[in-house]
Amino acid sequence: MKCRRCKNNEAEVILRRHNAVFCRDCFLPFFENQVKRAISEHGLFEKHDRIAVCVSGGKDSLVLWDVLLRLGYRADGLYINLGIGEYSRQSQEKVDAFAAAKGLKAIIVDLPGEGMDLPSVTAALRKKECSVCGVIKRHFFNAVPRNRGYTVVATGHNLDDEASRLLGNFLQWNTKYIEKQHPLLKETPSGMMRKVKPLVRLTEYETACYALIRGIDYMLYECPYARGATSMVYKDALNSIEEKIPGTKARFLYGLLAGELSGLGRKMEGAGENAGDTNGLACGSCGEPTYTELCGYCRLRAAVTEKREKRSKGALR
Amino acid sequence: MKCRRCKNNEAEVILRRHNAVFCRDCFLPFFENQVKRAISEHGLFEKHDRIAVCVSGGKDSLVLWDVLLRLGYRADGLYINLGIGEYSRQSQEKVDAFAAAKGLKAIIVDLPGEGMDLPSVTAALRKKECSVCGVIKRHFFNAVPRNRGYTVVATGHNLDDEASRLLGNFLQWNTKYIEKQHPLLKETPSGMMRKVKPLVRLTEYETACYALIRGIDYMLYECPYARGATSMVYKDALNSIEEKIPGTKARFLYGLLAGELSGLGRKMEGAGENAGDTNGLACGSCGEPTYTELCGYCRLRAAVTEKREKRSKGALR
Repeated sequence: MKCRRCKNNEAEVILRRHNAVFCRDCFLPFFENQVKRAISEHGLFEKHDRIAVCVSGGKDSLVLWDVLLRLGYRADGLYINLGIGEYSRQSQEKVDAFAAAKGLKAIIVDLPGEGMDLPSVTAALRKKECSVCGVIKRHFFNAVPRNRGYTVVATGHNLDDEASRLLGNFLQWNTKYIEKQHPLLKETPSGMMRKVKPLVRLTEYETACYALIRGIDYMLYECPYARGATSMVYKDALNSIEEKIPGTKARFLYGLLAGELSGLGRKMEGAGENAGDTNGLACGSCGEPTYTELCGYCRLRAAVTEKREKRSKGALR
Repeated sequence: MKCRRCKNNEAEVILRRHNAVFCRDCFLPFFENQVKRAISEHGLFEKHDRIAVCVSGGKDSLVLWDVLLRLGYRADGLYINLGIGEYSRQSQEKVDAFAAAKGLKAIIVDLPGEGMDLPSVTAALRKKECSVCGVIKRHFFNAVPRNRGYTVVATGHNLDDEASRLLGNFLQWNTKYIEKQHPLLKETPSGMMRKVKPLVRLTEYETACYALIRGIDYMLYECPYARGATSMVYKDALNSIEEKIPGTKARFLYGLLAGELSGLGRKMEGAGENAGDTNGLACGSCGEPTYTELCGYCRLRAAVTEKREKRSKGALR
């Protein structure tokens, strides 16, 4: 089968929902156009913006960093070393190698260096890994770019991520989250960074094809704590529907963004609600926006410190 | 594993979403209670009502007829012979045998006898089978019970049917259909019958177990035109989610019925909208409610007659 665009090369990428097939050379402009379209349609950012790209070492985030650089944006990678043994070590290696090949350096937040690696925090506080990780990421993916003068935080969430999240929110009637789901969450006066998802028009398969064609070496393995995550259940179900009814994922998510919720009585005004607009309230320790005296991360750190002090006192007695 | 209810017999029915296992004897009261609960919770009908049960010869509709009789309701089966060859013949056999075993007779609408069997109508008009079948069923499942003094029309739609329909309506943003989806559609002054779905709290698996335990011999094969129906795609997807997250189907559908749409701005008032409230307008031929001079079915019949007359005139020339 020949590529639909150049009508010359053998097609390698099959996009059933677009009723199109592309060779590897022609797939790249298609991919970039989808990113451009997401950026302009939702007003994600401008050329003068300074973008912090949250990178995990996985496919989507490295692809996002790559494509933003190719499109001429000022984008830097921001990696949090959670200290999850071999998984974190290898992930950081991928990030470092990707950056080095471009003559760049990613910003690294080193949690083990602060005594706050995920395994020891969760062990000390007997909390679930994924919830602690959420607190950590929310904190550093806002505080670090903000303190360093970035104007936008970008994440690699793709169409599969967003459509399956929407599906889960409908199935479980988490209606309040539905309205917050948007590729653009605007910055708030309290200091919440603008959060954007430029890959929202591209599927998992398409980012994988892009990574392959661009020769991006990424971390293949999932986080060991992510096994059995419910998000995978919704993704698999949506994929099985997409297989039979191509375009379902895109229609579902774009319908939300195009204001279909208004058919149920609600209106989304071109952006989602950025949780954390605290009306000026800020953490007494780190200055991040929060409703409580200390922000979630500083409370976490205080709790870990307290536990450790108790334990060492106990050991002295 | 012992039955949760009698704690004596070996369990045969496993209901993960209820975290329960039942022996066959104890499953029947569970099943009946779910039907009773649907009837009372949504005010479907009372003991004095005369209920026409739309039966196809398949599992769900015969189970519905059976359980309504066991619960002491005045319920009669209404079968439409669509004239789809061996499929219709066998289906009617199942209905007749079920009725005969109870000393009853189903009301039979015989379309081949009226020259309106589905295959010849669709051939004459070059229309899709499922859309013509919809027109036929909407007509006779309202007109026949109405003319015979029934007060309620009941269909065998189960939890899987309703949850997958809701899923499809969300995925495709058919928002106007979402609000019409309710186990109770009230009668209208124009003559639309009250339509109810008493099996809405029971899954496909549960109605199959009931049929097996009660020894109901039903038509195993799907309608030959139903192959590849999109409703099956949504059902399969929901089943794959249910497998990993038991209770999803029920929470999803019951959430709608419990008013969760209000979280998105809309309120459902204990019943869905019964399409066909025509404000007194009625078909000039059959008297059924309709917005146009002739109702959908009478237009269909007129079109078929016209086609046949043209053809026989052509043959005479």
